[in-house]
Amino acid sequence: MEKIKIFAPATVANVSCGFDAMAFALENLGDEMLFTKNTSGKVSISKIKGANLPTEIEKNVAGFVADVMLKDSNADFGVNIEIKKKYKPGSGLGSSAASSAGAAYAINELLGRPYTKLQLTKFSMLGEEVACGSQIADNVAGVIYGGFVLIRNYDPLDIISIPTPDDLYVSVLHPQIELRTEEGRAILPKEIPLSLAVSQWSNVGGLISGLHTSDYQLIGRAVEDHIIEPVRKKMIPHFDTVKKNALAAGALAVGISGSGPSIFALSKGELQARSVAESFKNTYNNKEINYTTYVSRIGITGVRKI
Amino acid sequence: MEKIKIFAPATVANVSCGFDAMAFALENLGDEMLFTKNTSGKVSISKIKGANLPTEIEKNVAGFVADVMLKDSNADFGVNIEIKKKYKPGSGLGSSAASSAGAAYAINELLGRPYTKLQLTKFSMLGEEVACGSQIADNVAGVIYGGFVLIRNYDPLDIISIPTPDDLYVSVLHPQIELRTEEGRAILPKEIPLSLAVSQWSNVGGLISGLHTSDYQLIGRAVEDHIIEPVRKKMIPHFDTVKKNALAAGALAVGISGSGPSIFALSKGELQARSVAESFKNTYNNKEINYTTYVSRIGITGVRKI
Repeated sequence: MEKIKIFAPATVANVSCGFDAMAFALENLGDEMLFTKNTSGKVSISKIKGANLPTEIEKNVAGFVADVMLKDSNADFGVNIEIKKKYKPGSGLGSSAASSAGAAYAINELLGRPYTKLQLTKFSMLGEEVACGSQIADNVAGVIYGGFVLIRNYDPLDIISIPTPDDLYVSVLHPQIELRTEEGRAILPKEIPLSLAVSQWSNVGGLISGLHTSDYQLIGRAVEDHIIEPVRKKMIPHFDTVKKNALAAGALAVGISGSGPSIFALSKGELQARSVAESFKNTYNNKEINYTTYVSRIGITGVRKI
Repeated sequence: MEKIKIFAPATVANVSCGFDAMAFALENLGDEMLFTKNTSGKVSISKIKGANLPTEIEKNVAGFVADVMLKDSNADFGVNIEIKKKYKPGSGLGSSAASSAGAAYAINELLGRPYTKLQLTKFSMLGEEVACGSQIADNVAGVIYGGFVLIRNYDPLDIISIPTPDDLYVSVLHPQIELRTEEGRAILPKEIPLSLAVSQWSNVGGLISGLHTSDYQLIGRAVEDHIIEPVRKKMIPHFDTVKKNALAAGALAVGISGSGPSIFALSKGELQARSVAESFKNTYNNKEINYTTYVSRIGITGVRKI
C-alpha cells in the first residue's frame, strides 16, 4: 500500500457521569487525512485545510505520532500527510485526538498492521500529550475502537469496548467561543464528597448497563453529572437554557462534550436528534455567539479507510 | 395460600468498587422463614432459631416489615413468623436484609402479589432502618431481585438487575469478631480525591460490562476499591494476608463484604472457589479467632419459596 485516505471521527469524551473514563465516536463528523509513502524516510505535512495548525512534525500531533511509529517500527519509508479538518479545533470534540489517532491508524495500515488497537491508542496518547500536555486516552480510544469506550485503567492501560445501541444519535451544539482544555481542568475540584462520588459511579454503572441492553431510558437517566458539570457549565454561555430546551425537545440526556464548550445531547433516532438540534438553534439564535450544530449516529466503526 | 416457607439469601454488598451501589445474592446461604396466616389480625413471632434477636415486632425487622405491609394493604389477616437463621448476624452478609426482604416477599405472596419488586424493596428498606438507622437498599435489593443489582439512584429509587455469569462463585471468610455497621460507616472519609473517584467509577463500569459479557478476567480486574477498603481493612484482622493468599490460590478478586468483617472472593467455577476457601482456612488457622467459611454460586433467583 503506497497511500491511504482515512476518516477520523470526532469524539465526545466524558459523557457526563463517565468523566475521564468514557467517550464515544461520531459516525459522520470527523477529519479526512491522506497519507502517502515517500522515500525520504521523513515525515512531512504538505497541506492543512480547515484549521490553522503547525506543520512542524514535533508540534503537529499527526506528524508527531507518525514519526514516533515509523521510528518504533524501523520503517524503510517516510510519509507525507495532508489534513482536511472538517470541524474546528477547540470545540471539545476531540480534534487533536482525531488527528493523532487518525495518524496512528493510517501508519499502521501502511506498515502492514504490526500494532494492536491498544498499541495504537498508546501511540495516539503521545499526540494528546503534544496537544494538551497529558496522555489522555478517552478521545483517542474512541477514535481507534469506535462506539463507546471505557478507560478502565491507565497503568496498565485497559480499554473496554462497550456495545452501542443501533438507534442512538447525538446532537451537538458548538458555541464558537475560546475555551482551552487546560483551563477546563484548572477549575475542577481536587476533592469531592464521597456521597456525590457514589451517585456518579452508580450512574456510570447504569450507563454501561443501558448500553449493553439498548435501554434508551436507562441511558437517559444515567447520563448525569453532579460533580464536573456544575463547575464547567459556568464557562458555557446559556448552558442551562440549552439543556432545558433540549430535554423538552425530547433528548434522553444533555451534557458537556469533553471539557466544552460543545454541548451534546443523546436521542433515540435521527428524527428526534434533529428536533433537538433545532432546539439548540432556537436557543442560540439572537445570542450574538456564532455556533454550529451537528447531528450524527454514534459511530460504531471509528477511524476507517475511505 | 395459608402459609409459606421461604429461603432468603445472604448478600454481599458493595462488591469493592461498587460501594453503596451494588450487591449480589448467594445461592445456598441464607435464612429460612415460615409465615402462617392467623385470624388475630396481628403480626407475631413465635420462634427464632440460630440467633438472639428481639421478638417484639417494632424491633424485629421481619415483624416490622410484615406489620407495615399488612396495614398498607388493609389485609384481613395477621401473620405468625418463625425464623431459622442459618448464618450469624453481624457478619457483613446482610443478615437483617435477609429477614426484612424475606418478610416482604412472603407477605406479598400471602396477599396475592399486589406489590412490585421495587415496592418490596422499599418495604424492606424500612426494616434496614430498624436494624441500622438508614434505609439502605443494596442488600435488600440483592435479596429481592437476586443476582447482581445496581442501585442507580435512591430518590426516586432505581434498581437495575445486572446479568450474572453462569460459573461465578463466591467464597466467604467470616471472622467472628464484633463489628457494627455504624462503626464501619463512622470511619469513612467524607471527601475523597477526584482522581481516586475516577478510578472507582472506571472500575464500576468495567465490572458492569464484565458481568454483561461473562468476562471473568475483566470482573477480576475491576473488583478493586482504593477508597473504602484501605480504611475498613484495618478493622479486619489479617485482611492483607487473607487477600494475598486467596489471589495466589486463584481468586479473581477479593474484597470486604458490606462493611465487614466478612471477606469475599470471586472465582470462576466451584472447584476454584473451594480452593480459595481452603486458603482462607489455612490463613486463619492458629490465629485464635473463630471463623466460618462458605462457598456458593451467585444466586440468580434471590428470595424464593421452598
